[in-house]
Amino acid sequence: MTLPDPPARSFASDNAAGAHPAVLEAIARVNVGHALAYGDDDETRACERRFSELFGREVTTLLTFNGTGANVLALTAIARPGDAAICSEWAHVNVDETGAPERIAGIKLIDVAVPDGKLTPEHVDHHAHALGDFHHAQPAIVSITQSTELGTVYTADEIAALCDAAHRHGMRVHMDGARIANAVAAAGGGVAALHAMTTEAGVDVMTFGGTKNGMLGGEAVLFLDPSLGARGQYVRKTVTQLPAKMRFVAAQFNALLADDLWLSLAGHANRMAGLLHTAMSGLPGVEPGPEPVVNSIFPTLPPAAIGPLQAWSFFWDWDRSRHQVRWMTAWDTHPDDVATFATGVRQILAGSD
Amino acid sequence: MTLPDPPARSFASDNAAGAHPAVLEAIARVNVGHALAYGDDDETRACERRFSELFGREVTTLLTFNGTGANVLALTAIARPGDAAICSEWAHVNVDETGAPERIAGIKLIDVAVPDGKLTPEHVDHHAHALGDFHHAQPAIVSITQSTELGTVYTADEIAALCDAAHRHGMRVHMDGARIANAVAAAGGGVAALHAMTTEAGVDVMTFGGTKNGMLGGEAVLFLDPSLGARGQYVRKTVTQLPAKMRFVAAQFNALLADDLWLSLAGHANRMAGLLHTAMSGLPGVEPGPEPVVNSIFPTLPPAAIGPLQAWSFFWDWDRSRHQVRWMTAWDTHPDDVATFATGVRQILAGSD
Amino acid sequence: MTLPDPPARSFASDNAAGAHPAVLEAIARVNVGHALAYGDDDETRACERRFSELFGREVTTLLTFNGTGANVLALTAIARPGDAAICSEWAHVNVDETGAPERIAGIKLIDVAVPDGKLTPEHVDHHAHALGDFHHAQPAIVSITQSTELGTVYTADEIAALCDAAHRHGMRVHMDGARIANAVAAAGGGVAALHAMTTEAGVDVMTFGGTKNGMLGGEAVLFLDPSLGARGQYVRKTVTQLPAKMRFVAAQFNALLADDLWLSLAGHANRMAGLLHTAMSGLPGVEPGPEPVVNSIFPTLPPAAIGPLQAWSFFWDWDRSRHQVRWMTAWDTHPDDVATFATGVRQILAGSD
Amino acid sequence: MTLPDPPARSFASDNAAGAHPAVLEAIARVNVGHALAYGDDDETRACERRFSELFGREVTTLLTFNGTGANVLALTAIARPGDAAICSEWAHVNVDETGAPERIAGIKLIDVAVPDGKLTPEHVDHHAHALGDFHHAQPAIVSITQSTELGTVYTADEIAALCDAAHRHGMRVHMDGARIANAVAAAGGGVAALHAMTTEAGVDVMTFGGTKNGMLGGEAVLFLDPSLGARGQYVRKTVTQLPAKMRFVAAQFNALLADDLWLSLAGHANRMAGLLHTAMSGLPGVEPGPEPVVNSIFPTLPPAAIGPLQAWSFFWDWDRSRHQVRWMTAWDTHPDDVATFATGVRQILAGSD
Repeated sequence: MTLPDPPARSFASDNAAGAHPAVLEAIARVNVGHALAYGDDDETRACERRFSELFGREVTTLLTFNGTGANVLALTAIARPGDAAICSEWAHVNVDETGAPERIAGIKLIDVAVPDGKLTPEHVDHHAHALGDFHHAQPAIVSITQSTELGTVYTADEIAALCDAAHRHGMRVHMDGARIANAVAAAGGGVAALHAMTTEAGVDVMTFGGTKNGMLGGEAVLFLDPSLGARGQYVRKTVTQLPAKMRFVAAQFNALLADDLWLSLAGHANRMAGLLHTAMSGLPGVEPGPEPVVNSIFPTLPPAAIGPLQAWSFFWDWDRSRHQVRWMTAWDTHPDDVATFATGVRQILAGSD
Repeated sequence: MTLPDPPARSFASDNAAGAHPAVLEAIARVNVGHALAYGDDDETRACERRFSELFGREVTTLLTFNGTGANVLALTAIARPGDAAICSEWAHVNVDETGAPERIAGIKLIDVAVPDGKLTPEHVDHHAHALGDFHHAQPAIVSITQSTELGTVYTADEIAALCDAAHRHGMRVHMDGARIANAVAAAGGGVAALHAMTTEAGVDVMTFGGTKNGMLGGEAVLFLDPSLGARGQYVRKTVTQLPAKMRFVAAQFNALLADDLWLSLAGHANRMAGLLHTAMSGLPGVEPGPEPVVNSIFPTLPPAAIGPLQAWSFFWDWDRSRHQVRWMTAWDTHPDDVATFATGVRQILAGSD
Repeated sequence: MTLPDPPARSFASDNAAGAHPAVLEAIARVNVGHALAYGDDDETRACERRFSELFGREVTTLLTFNGTGANVLALTAIARPGDAAICSEWAHVNVDETGAPERIAGIKLIDVAVPDGKLTPEHVDHHAHALGDFHHAQPAIVSITQSTELGTVYTADEIAALCDAAHRHGMRVHMDGARIANAVAAAGGGVAALHAMTTEAGVDVMTFGGTKNGMLGGEAVLFLDPSLGARGQYVRKTVTQLPAKMRFVAAQFNALLADDLWLSLAGHANRMAGLLHTAMSGLPGVEPGPEPVVNSIFPTLPPAAIGPLQAWSFFWDWDRSRHQVRWMTAWDTHPDDVATFATGVRQILAGSD
Repeated sequence: MTLPDPPARSFASDNAAGAHPAVLEAIARVNVGHALAYGDDDETRACERRFSELFGREVTTLLTFNGTGANVLALTAIARPGDAAICSEWAHVNVDETGAPERIAGIKLIDVAVPDGKLTPEHVDHHAHALGDFHHAQPAIVSITQSTELGTVYTADEIAALCDAAHRHGMRVHMDGARIANAVAAAGGGVAALHAMTTEAGVDVMTFGGTKNGMLGGEAVLFLDPSLGARGQYVRKTVTQLPAKMRFVAAQFNALLADDLWLSLAGHANRMAGLLHTAMSGLPGVEPGPEPVVNSIFPTLPPAAIGPLQAWSFFWDWDRSRHQVRWMTAWDTHPDDVATFATGVRQILAGSD
């Protein structure tokens, strides 16, 4: 069996992709002379304006380094001592941040078993019973991820219903938007879709991902309710998420937000996942899983094929007990990568018979 | 009075400078195809090897985003509940990190009044009296900054004596090396000088600054005693300092460490501070302060001149009660910037009479 | 319907009971003259010796105020940054400490759904998959409660198997022994039973409850592996659990540990729960639940009866959706209390038809 | 030299004293039957009413175990992420709580060098310069101790001026009142004096000490501005300071607050310190220090006498470099104790010539 060269862009993660050329160009563009550090510069001010324009209202924007930091900043800013956040058991804050929310925000996470990664108003109502009982951490925050860690997407109505439930109990809603672009692209791809699932739905604070969508690195924390962000700048420094040469984070976001690049990149990634799913459908032994909504698929493979496939073109296991893996596309995935990958899968499947 | 255009590169901070071209080139160089995230990539491995080579021994290298994060990571990794760190009252960890060490590392800072920003073994011995008394936070860490926040530099012998005192009491030594390059350049500028003030002196863990020395952003935490870094990777994620696309931080450091660029940039900044100091000497009403060792001077000015000068080319006050300011050079300061700035100072001084 | 007077001692909680006369006598006995504070007194030293004698080996004893504090002290002493503790979803540390372990120990809690409140080695093995992956909080501690919050008891063999599993993965085992006395009494009531389920099973650190067993207030943290307790005294002060006039906590424990009073009181409470269970069996509409092992029963009642019953003699709901309540006996429950309570239940049930 | 027996009550600390008989009687009085735990009992409600009556307004009272815990609760309740508290370098929160405020409240402590242990409005104004600069922990709390750790007392006017300064900057004032009774007794000993130095002066939250003033153990946190205490019950549990059988803490305070016992006990301790000071005046080689205001004196002794004196009747060194010690009286100090101690001092001084 002679395998082709692996695809130039693997299906391991959208974090494995590099930066979009426009992002590097923007960095080069602002790399002229001096600019005051810590956000007191024109590029950052322009970025903050852009976010307010994007949402059609004044939002408080705090640029940060990474997703974990952005989530921790948002949670620390809105939590009080003794508070808890309700989240999905799959939530990045719950399983992929090495306890940062607990240690730094000082909160408890109440994780809910949900097969599709999505909370419902019933979950919120159920845990609200703890409110007012001082023996229990107070569920004061509902934290959702859009799109979710399982590749699903909340509809705008679902988020609005969650926000209604949360607000009815006096809770705040935090959205981990590390892949908000993929969700918006999946929901129609326009500003209206963004508004519907965030400001109009009632989300209080969200993160807006850049790293997974073509940036070198950078995330924004957006206080959609600016009153919550009043002390955000202090909290950002306290949680170690204040970039010194902030113009370079801002320039990246400005590139991404110009001409809807953030949406076209995410939409492309989503489409490539669809293409990948199609390419895998009908392969003997491959159960491709549900058609993707965003940029990941979760196929089940013959056990003997997984190791050789990973050795050829790496990707992550998802659920070893079920021989399920995760394949993820990125802003730079090329149809040729899909074709090459499909060829490799076919050959390895044939060889692993 | 017609002032010239302000200098293209101000004297506000080395954080106000941009990135060195070699840094951007390195980023572009590694921006090809996919690479696994979170450090499992060749560029990061090369960076880790480079740091070990630089120190002539195996060191554990953890790349991070920024200086506050790097310090917090280092302190969290070596502190135990109930511990304290002894530091200068001027220390960045003490006055410029918005309480991050206290909140995240959970430690107390014992700040010592020192006119030159430098701790001595006597300070260590004095605070060691608290060891063994469970009512007092245990001074288990001595944290020094090299070069210091006041523009001074510890000699290798001074650091060795501090490390001896600390280790005699069972304490660990942390060095905030946000400007280690400036210190090494000031001390002769070679690897021998670096070793003398770090590994040979007995420093246990240090940060190694990149941001202030020509990078877009990035700092390294170096466990010179690798046994202290055994759990560093977990701690890095917990304190939100794990870069996803780490190759781009690694590439910046690899550019800086190649051909001693880190030293030539810092040496240049140091020399420009000397030039600036000379240019200010003899100006009527200007007390230029001590000759600079690294890249900052702390002159005293006629009160009426400070505002107009800042309005023309911004810089920070240092001690308003004494009309003292801080002027700082960077890797990209040009002699013309010094000349232009001196012209402006002269004119404004003349006008403020 | 004329209800009798409610029982002098309710069935709300063992926390609702007062102090045993021997406890008050011990306090009065040591209330003579001065004794150095913070544990440097003869009564505390005697108490520490008593605990070592009780366990037949040197254990490190730290007296504290309350159960939450004792748990937090134990967890803080053995956790490292980035660590997690595996526990039952019912665990006191998880649901009844208002997030104290997260905030103070800085750990994540991984709570496991278990119908009987008891973890198994399989749970430990399952969560051990996260070990070594720096994205996940590291499950370094297994925390069990003995007897459990559901009134169940681990056998010595079950605990030994849990400890084996935990230690095989390099984890430590913490036992919340707020009701350890009830568990030992249920398991035969002697020192051999205590050893079997703690030191011999391999528990690393435990709390030893006094408050619920006839003391005014006080819990002991026992480092059965004294190496873990080396810094415990510092941690105790840091977590605010250092009693000043410690002789008065020690005297209470010394009273409890004399002549096996701790076991006779707990055994009595257990027997009273059995009596209560028997008294309720056969009442129309009452499903008394499983026969009690320790000092609580969890009956299901006709919905309409619960409110009137609570108004007459207060107790807590357990699961409102199932009309399940918790009735708990204490060291001072008298058979007359049981009889009176049964009479009231019968009358109210009759009236609520 | 034949020394007399040491005094029955040493001069080591007011923490070394036992409990007043009325305190034990109160505990025995409420040790009848069952009472709901965690403060839902009549004795606690009565205690809360008493404190409101004592201050002549509604205050929110939270009973706790100890002084460190009470301070940590108060600070945690009013601090936000990124905040700092200004305090004296001698403050208990700063030097005698093993970093608990930093770890649990997550705040920075800004300690001010003050020879007499007392902050001034100038200190507050000086540190207020950091407000609004997000690089610095925000000095949002002024923490004072009344009476201070150095045995000095703020006048009501001094506290009012401090509160004015603090409030002008938007800061809150926390008073560590572990020895508030001694301060009030020193200031005239009535409720008017208490009001003048607390509510009327503008203190926002205070602790009210019981342990050092004749209780077995217990402190109250009083939110004099009840709006600050709205979430105090949650915070109390989170910081591990919620007593289960709270009636026994409440009963102790109720005994102390009845018939001004708290004031007569503290006044007695103060007078005994005066007696001790007088007895030491004129002894050769003894420099008794300033006349005491509250219940401690800080004499300087011939170096050779200190060890033998401590071996005979223990007390603590204060400043070894100056051969200064601390002698402290308590609610139960008897004039005979003073006389006996003076005899011992005289004999040992004679022998140490």
